[in-house]
Amino acid sequence: MTGLPRPASGDPAALDAVAAAEEIRAGRLTSEALVRACLDRIARRDEAVRAWTHLDPEAALAAARAADRSAPQGLLHGVPVGIKDVIRTAGMPTGMNSPHHQSDGPTQDAAAVEILRHLGAIVLGKLDTVEFAVNGRRAATRNPHDPARTPGGSSSGSGAAVADFQVPLALGTQTGGSVIRPAAFCGVPAMKPSWGSVPTEGMRSCSASLDTLGWYGRSVRDLALLWRTFQWQAAIPLAPEIAGLRIGLCLSPVADLLQPPALAALAMAVEALRGAGAEVIPVELPEQEGARLSEAHKTVMQGEMRATFLNEALRFPDLYPELRGIVTAPMQDDFLDALDFAAAMRPRTDALFAPFDAVLTPSAPDVAPIGPENAGSALCNRIWTLLHLPVIHLPLPHGPGLLPAGVSLIAPRGRDAALLRTAAALEGLFATCPPRGV
Amino acid sequence: MTGLPRPASGDPAALDAVAAAEEIRAGRLTSEALVRACLDRIARRDEAVRAWTHLDPEAALAAARAADRSAPQGLLHGVPVGIKDVIRTAGMPTGMNSPHHQSDGPTQDAAAVEILRHLGAIVLGKLDTVEFAVNGRRAATRNPHDPARTPGGSSSGSGAAVADFQVPLALGTQTGGSVIRPAAFCGVPAMKPSWGSVPTEGMRSCSASLDTLGWYGRSVRDLALLWRTFQWQAAIPLAPEIAGLRIGLCLSPVADLLQPPALAALAMAVEALRGAGAEVIPVELPEQEGARLSEAHKTVMQGEMRATFLNEALRFPDLYPELRGIVTAPMQDDFLDALDFAAAMRPRTDALFAPFDAVLTPSAPDVAPIGPENAGSALCNRIWTLLHLPVIHLPLPHGPGLLPAGVSLIAPRGRDAALLRTAAALEGLFATCPPRGV
Repeated sequence: MTGLPRPASGDPAALDAVAAAEEIRAGRLTSEALVRACLDRIARRDEAVRAWTHLDPEAALAAARAADRSAPQGLLHGVPVGIKDVIRTAGMPTGMNSPHHQSDGPTQDAAAVEILRHLGAIVLGKLDTVEFAVNGRRAATRNPHDPARTPGGSSSGSGAAVADFQVPLALGTQTGGSVIRPAAFCGVPAMKPSWGSVPTEGMRSCSASLDTLGWYGRSVRDLALLWRTFQWQAAIPLAPEIAGLRIGLCLSPVADLLQPPALAALAMAVEALRGAGAEVIPVELPEQEGARLSEAHKTVMQGEMRATFLNEALRFPDLYPELRGIVTAPMQDDFLDALDFAAAMRPRTDALFAPFDAVLTPSAPDVAPIGPENAGSALCNRIWTLLHLPVIHLPLPHGPGLLPAGVSLIAPRGRDAALLRTAAALEGLFATCPPRGV
Repeated sequence: MTGLPRPASGDPAALDAVAAAEEIRAGRLTSEALVRACLDRIARRDEAVRAWTHLDPEAALAAARAADRSAPQGLLHGVPVGIKDVIRTAGMPTGMNSPHHQSDGPTQDAAAVEILRHLGAIVLGKLDTVEFAVNGRRAATRNPHDPARTPGGSSSGSGAAVADFQVPLALGTQTGGSVIRPAAFCGVPAMKPSWGSVPTEGMRSCSASLDTLGWYGRSVRDLALLWRTFQWQAAIPLAPEIAGLRIGLCLSPVADLLQPPALAALAMAVEALRGAGAEVIPVELPEQEGARLSEAHKTVMQGEMRATFLNEALRFPDLYPELRGIVTAPMQDDFLDALDFAAAMRPRTDALFAPFDAVLTPSAPDVAPIGPENAGSALCNRIWTLLHLPVIHLPLPHGPGLLPAGVSLIAPRGRDAALLRTAAALEGLFATCPPRGV
């Protein structure tokens, strides 16, 4: 356990994306200086963290200098962003941590990357992932708080790089818990938006019913910045007062799995909220449905993977056996039942959570386990993915020598903007909590 | 009205894909000779039909010669296939009939194309489409039966090229009625499989809940050949006897729209089935639900297009106004209701159709209208797309001077193999019908 060394005060690598964009817009910071600060941070820390699969410093600096010479293009002008290596990116390889794709050439930008670039972002490089963002080979990435620990999967490099101040923003993907789990383990804000609200074209598809692009930032306002990037002219209203908020507390279906750090993070959040005048009200899924949703997630994902990974299974006889087994297995008899059950539960869950400004739920059962083979459990995340809900992870403060833990905030489908607003208020509140373990 | 000139007897271009693959496997035909026959047909007919957006005869012949030199690779060894130009294809451009993408360079193969090549197919070229497979610019393609008529959209080139004996197989895509409608207008068998059963990665995404890859062939066994290509080691059982089949007849929700040729095709099918000892039993969706499904299709599709076309709307201020309007409109209030309603109707419709070996339903309200601006109506197709059902179009014989009309066969989700089996029996029966108008 070594702890995560913070950048020196005044180091542009310490800025969140919103501050960096403002400084660049105001002419007080160049994109080149910001990219150079990120590259310097990576140079110092990469041996320990190993987040990147592709990094071309000269190309990134050239793009930054071009941004500095051009008129502001959009919300992200001059701001560097990292891309999970299952998302296609022009001029860079997309290896997906598959031994069969390490020499695949560059291709066109995924739709989301095209949008980021159009709004002025500098694509810094590609970030390591669990093989195909599913299973198989683990990322080489280590947890920036402790190199013996996993950063979580599958967006391992994305969570670690943003947490470690190597880049202010990164894209990840979530089909089970692949955005939120690394956020929890690395202690960094992250957002998985409502399913279908952000284009997935150009990311390695796994399960059409579940695949969702998500992202990491240094702050909730960074998460909102990227959310706005993927909406047509959306504004995020200001954060509300804490007093008067109605916050749900949902431990379904994982209450029995939670370990002391996860419970402590939830307790800190609840105590802070109640202390500041918010109501915190328990709300649970019906027990049987909660358990069935977790099973249904697996059935839907594996059933849809039979088609999405057929090309890999045909082309590569030595595809890793678990994935090959999923493709070659007969379709499970209860596949359509699982799809239909999930679909029926979506409006029911929306209605259950509708009375709340947000619902608190665990992001992970515990802190990051010893890695890399164990990338942690997605049990806290996958039912919300299946239900298509927007999810935001917020870290809570912890004392020296401890590992990060935090909470998820969830909301009904389509309430992403309202969830961001509530999250911004809670972020401010949580920052004032006495650190866990102190 | 000119009629579609059939290839001369013995011309390999007249073979269906199953026969072509058998001839090649047996050494009685080379892939080169088959590809050359297709290219000769295209050379003779392209001025009238205009199906192709990219065709490189020398490259196709080289690939065919390479197949002739190599050991048989799979089901499709040496068989040429055309690819709708919204599906990415290595070594060929993907212009999507968008003025903004005509100079996009080649990229990697879509998953489905990778699978076809792995099983030995020769990618002959790219086939014209309605802009982005949605709306906007129409394909340059003409109906091979009458150049004044539309071939239907959006898989205009795919339907026309297979119907016109220019290639035995072609991939299309369907989000509303884009595979089945061109099949009806051009008079060629086609299949839209169950949603999620074939990988869509690498096709231009439109609506994650609806997008489905489909295909055209010369016969039901050709459709089955491609279906098997996209399954892990699936076999298609033999066609059953007609006597004893239970066939549904469903006119929902378009009964009032049907014009004489569509009604005549349905009547021919029903009469032939009853004459051969099948039961034909009317089965209708509840009236209110049928109408609501048609509206829900539009709401779901447009709601999901807000995300999938955001990149185009941001990058191209002159994107065609209808598409731009869909992206920039606020999300419709009833979007989630429409998604949930469709999801709830899926198991209900499966149960409604489960007692039947297949259900007959119209493929189009009428024969092909005068084109190109009017590409015909998708009203007969879009609710089945929304319900994720497998659909097979079968043409019925028509007399000289008349345009093609046929019927759709549908089945519950996941019953693609059983539907193919029933369709094979019906194809044989329909071939014996007295031609319409004679």
